[in-house]
Amino acid sequence: MSRWIQDGDNVDLTNERKKATFDTERMSAWIHGGAEVLKRRREILAFVKSVDDFNDPVPVEFLSREERILNNARKVVAMTGNTDQIDGSDFFGEGMYYQALTMGRDLHAMSLHYVMFIPTLQGQTDDDQLDEWLTKAISRAVIGTYAQTELGHGTNLSKLETTATYDPATEEFVLNSPTITAAKWWPGGLGKSSNYAVVVAQLYTKGECKGPHPFIVQLRDDETHIPLKGIRLGDIGPKLGINGNDNGFMLFDKVRIPRNALLMRYAKVKPDGTYVAPAHSKLGYGTMVFVRSIMIKDQSTQLAAAATIATRYAAVRRQGEISPGKGEVQIIDYQTQQFRVFPQMARAFAFMAAATEIRNLYMTVTEQLTHGNTELLAELHVLSSGLKSVVSWDTAQGIEQCRLACGGHGYSQASGFPEIFGYAVGGCTYEGENIVMLLQVARFLMKAAEGVKKGTANLADIGAYIGKTGGKTSRLTTHHHYTDKDLIEDLEHVARKQVFRAYDRLKKAQDHLRPEDAWNSVSVELAKASRWHVRLYLVKNFLNKVSLAPQDLKFVLTDVARLYAYDIITSSIGAFLEDGYMTSQQINEVKEGLYECLAKLRPNAVSLVDSWDYDDKELKSVLGRRDGNVYPALLEWAQNSQLNKTEVLPSYHKYLGPMMKDARSKL
Amino acid sequence: MSRWIQDGDNVDLTNERKKATFDTERMSAWIHGGAEVLKRRREILAFVKSVDDFNDPVPVEFLSREERILNNARKVVAMTGNTDQIDGSDFFGEGMYYQALTMGRDLHAMSLHYVMFIPTLQGQTDDDQLDEWLTKAISRAVIGTYAQTELGHGTNLSKLETTATYDPATEEFVLNSPTITAAKWWPGGLGKSSNYAVVVAQLYTKGECKGPHPFIVQLRDDETHIPLKGIRLGDIGPKLGINGNDNGFMLFDKVRIPRNALLMRYAKVKPDGTYVAPAHSKLGYGTMVFVRSIMIKDQSTQLAAAATIATRYAAVRRQGEISPGKGEVQIIDYQTQQFRVFPQMARAFAFMAAATEIRNLYMTVTEQLTHGNTELLAELHVLSSGLKSVVSWDTAQGIEQCRLACGGHGYSQASGFPEIFGYAVGGCTYEGENIVMLLQVARFLMKAAEGVKKGTANLADIGAYIGKTGGKTSRLTTHHHYTDKDLIEDLEHVARKQVFRAYDRLKKAQDHLRPEDAWNSVSVELAKASRWHVRLYLVKNFLNKVSLAPQDLKFVLTDVARLYAYDIITSSIGAFLEDGYMTSQQINEVKEGLYECLAKLRPNAVSLVDSWDYDDKELKSVLGRRDGNVYPALLEWAQNSQLNKTEVLPSYHKYLGPMMKDARSKL
Repeated sequence: MSRWIQDGDNVDLTNERKKATFDTERMSAWIHGGAEVLKRRREILAFVKSVDDFNDPVPVEFLSREERILNNARKVVAMTGNTDQIDGSDFFGEGMYYQALTMGRDLHAMSLHYVMFIPTLQGQTDDDQLDEWLTKAISRAVIGTYAQTELGHGTNLSKLETTATYDPATEEFVLNSPTITAAKWWPGGLGKSSNYAVVVAQLYTKGECKGPHPFIVQLRDDETHIPLKGIRLGDIGPKLGINGNDNGFMLFDKVRIPRNALLMRYAKVKPDGTYVAPAHSKLGYGTMVFVRSIMIKDQSTQLAAAATIATRYAAVRRQGEISPGKGEVQIIDYQTQQFRVFPQMARAFAFMAAATEIRNLYMTVTEQLTHGNTELLAELHVLSSGLKSVVSWDTAQGIEQCRLACGGHGYSQASGFPEIFGYAVGGCTYEGENIVMLLQVARFLMKAAEGVKKGTANLADIGAYIGKTGGKTSRLTTHHHYTDKDLIEDLEHVARKQVFRAYDRLKKAQDHLRPEDAWNSVSVELAKASRWHVRLYLVKNFLNKVSLAPQDLKFVLTDVARLYAYDIITSSIGAFLEDGYMTSQQINEVKEGLYECLAKLRPNAVSLVDSWDYDDKELKSVLGRRDGNVYPALLEWAQNSQLNKTEVLPSYHKYLGPMMKDARSKL
Repeated sequence: MSRWIQDGDNVDLTNERKKATFDTERMSAWIHGGAEVLKRRREILAFVKSVDDFNDPVPVEFLSREERILNNARKVVAMTGNTDQIDGSDFFGEGMYYQALTMGRDLHAMSLHYVMFIPTLQGQTDDDQLDEWLTKAISRAVIGTYAQTELGHGTNLSKLETTATYDPATEEFVLNSPTITAAKWWPGGLGKSSNYAVVVAQLYTKGECKGPHPFIVQLRDDETHIPLKGIRLGDIGPKLGINGNDNGFMLFDKVRIPRNALLMRYAKVKPDGTYVAPAHSKLGYGTMVFVRSIMIKDQSTQLAAAATIATRYAAVRRQGEISPGKGEVQIIDYQTQQFRVFPQMARAFAFMAAATEIRNLYMTVTEQLTHGNTELLAELHVLSSGLKSVVSWDTAQGIEQCRLACGGHGYSQASGFPEIFGYAVGGCTYEGENIVMLLQVARFLMKAAEGVKKGTANLADIGAYIGKTGGKTSRLTTHHHYTDKDLIEDLEHVARKQVFRAYDRLKKAQDHLRPEDAWNSVSVELAKASRWHVRLYLVKNFLNKVSLAPQDLKFVLTDVARLYAYDIITSSIGAFLEDGYMTSQQINEVKEGLYECLAKLRPNAVSLVDSWDYDDKELKSVLGRRDGNVYPALLEWAQNSQLNKTEVLPSYHKYLGPMMKDARSKL
């Protein structure tokens, strides 16, 4: 008996757990940052399990949207009312875990209150505003959201249409939505829950547009919660996921707000309408970088959940015979199954390692910013944008692979996959559309390439490879002798090559096109360069983290890290073969290495996913249950179906029954 | 003014339509098989629009499952009650179109009745049974489904657990579910709608198991619709898609059914329990091959819908500036956007071309089978299995790319994508899990390879390339001079190479492993060989179809077909570079060809998707509307949200309001 092996468990799953060649508990501690962190996770789990308000009446997939909203409101009040149970300063760790346990994958009425509204107040208010608003926000006297995106405008902030026109006569701004496309659209919690918002609008004063600025605006009456005059609010309807949240729309009809509604830490408008520009235009980026940094952790957690479900289910599910007469085999024994699922597990590990790094970098930058030091801000911006894009895409793809690997039952909401996918895949679009993000990274890469060409490059660690002169051929002999160093150099070669391919094409295009058109004409190649840049970072960072792991964990982590790297290489063979950098024989070696990793990971797979320390409360998957008793649980789960409340449905009485009766009467 | 250009349309979309260099109406006729077919489509559309019962009260995404089931029941009775409006013999054409228009992407209570139940009766009953059951089924006196898959058993039929034990004393079979994993699970319409089913169970007689056989079984009382004694039925709960269908579970507790419930066209059980084996074991495959053949058409229709939405929206949506000061551009002008969306359009064209072929082949095989001729059955089986796998996977991926290309609004159910994806992606799993399908194709390929090695191969057209000796290098010089013949030979080279790579590995593995383990150890390579085999077929078939197109359509179709082929090559560069078959320079030529296709297709893109002839009634997408008036329509659509029925939700009164009030009182 242990945390993972208990009486009554599915026998196959128990056998898997007994086979592991490492200590699951020690691996969990390594993953989560030490035994103490692990202990705290379990305290938080025990607390959440002890509070009735955190229980769902039935699995949430059986609730209507109205019911989900109500259920979530109860939980979020309980969750935010018990924050003394966690270390509030550790949002990346305890905060996110606590929220995942209590709220699942549905966000809630106060998601943006905590992730966007409060950080914006902290970052953008002057001291007087901070006193007033932060107090109200933190005490939960108001619920705020962040209203920037409009129906017709997303990534390109400069074209937002909502206007805030200053009227010096009354010392007020007039908020207005001049068109339908100006409607605020998407903000979480805006439709029904929030009564305040930071609204981003084009600031007009003295007849001039000063660009988009943030304003704090009351939306609904404090007592009745009815929208204030001139403000039209509503829910934007059902989505692919996150349907327990009331993402909303908002239209302003000449709504007057006081001058000090403008958040004035940086830009200011004086009573007479004089505009004072901010000293440093980049300081406003803090919130977005914060959210993107969190996203890496969040996405890796979703992918790991998917890999946990698929791996456990593959150990439980038996289908087909390999040796005739010996009975059906666990599907995890099929190479094709391993090839589908294990790389997703490896990716999740790699992304978690990156999440730790980006958190550390974010902390450093935040600390520096308080001293006005913006040295690392650009690097964090580039890295978080690139990681956000690559990680969210690979995560969505990986979740879908895990779902498909579970066959028909993966399609049922009992699997948890539809919720996990719906939740995670939003990350490809929000907080900066992925392709746009990659093209931002490409700006940095093209500057770096230019610097290298001109001999003026001064590249920090993450971009140093662009200035290196690598070998003309890979040093790989056999995969057993393929060192981390050689592997990284091979990836560096490919990344560098793509950077300069894009650069050369760009330069060539600039000969006959205007700069913007030239950029557009090579943008597919530019995005590719950015992807290689990020992948290289992910592999380097993961290999480095593994090299520092304790000896008893390192051997299995090495299999994981190698699988991650080999999967990248064998998925893009062409990039390595080009110009004879690798031979077909070398590629075959990498493939053999990959197949060997699959075979070596096979006996450790279940314990590896156990190490992530998901409780069933967090995983919310019938297929991925710790105990492996999947089939009785599926039958039990299905009993909750709305359709099973009545033996004979109205559809029979009203339509199908009369149709058949009529036909029988004519036979 | 024309079918596609009307007053009040979005100006950008109208301009796109005016730019087309071909006649949309002529293209539509070519796609759908002639002007007469197009005329019939429009008659069917007009009929469907004229019938009130086919209208949804609100867009179906706002309905609960109970409401969807009820709504669908009304529509399906109307649909099946008006089949005189269509040519019932043309299921691939008029039948599928009529169903798509009336039922959307939700299936319905009688989906399996028509697609599985009736075809099984037609294929498996003896003459007496046929008289009785087909009459009842066709007249709609019963609703039948097809219950094969079990909770614990999918693809591997031989291990189904449901038993049908013959009792000669009463001349009855006893149906029983000995375990929970024996529960029938997934059949469409089984949970609540059907009152009859073909049940597949292990036939036991005289103490011996004769394997799985089909039985016709009454499930519910004709009058009350209550399940018969010993039968437990229910809905299996919500899924990723198709939630207007009551996929069900069923457990038997020693239910007695008459001897002639066994469908006895092939196998029989005599009154004394003597078992008579079928003469030809493969004849039972007909239904599955039929469904897989339909699927190719169905999947291509879904992908085309997604490409239509993404293409039109990309013409309507403006974001970002390419030339500063010239205003925001249509996002279709971004190369990255074209690169995301246009290949999906090209795939849809290629898959439609394959769907036509497979339909013709299916018709031929069916005709042959009535004469006992099984010559082409194996080929149809291999081709339909392989196409089903590749097409459903590429379709799901393609739909998701189209969705992501629409940014945030793609995530809203207003886009239609969540329904389209949820519906289409099921095809990766049902009717034979995709990887299993690919490995079946690989059996055929390995036999062919063996035949070539031994000089005994007798390969029909589709596999002939396996026995050919191709050149050692590609003949490609520049993409402007890249002939269809050369292109196909390059793909043949890669496909053949992968077939023999897998074959050689398999032989090598057989040296030291038992055959089944050897097969498993190379199964990733085997699946890859099957994919190339199918892709080669798809390209060849598409290029061939385009080469026969009328001159005024051929030039733009050539761009489409080339884009399809170039996308395949540039997505797998490694396969072409290996062993120096192509040079990096040649790969660059293909890339240049691809970028050129994107640019050439740009002005024709909207009219190309128009040519598929989707009416808004079928497309069901706010983003993809014919008139392009996306933004007002989004705002209008959102008003239907369940949450907008009340200005202040119970979640405020019960939880959020008291929380804020309490906090304010303490400030």
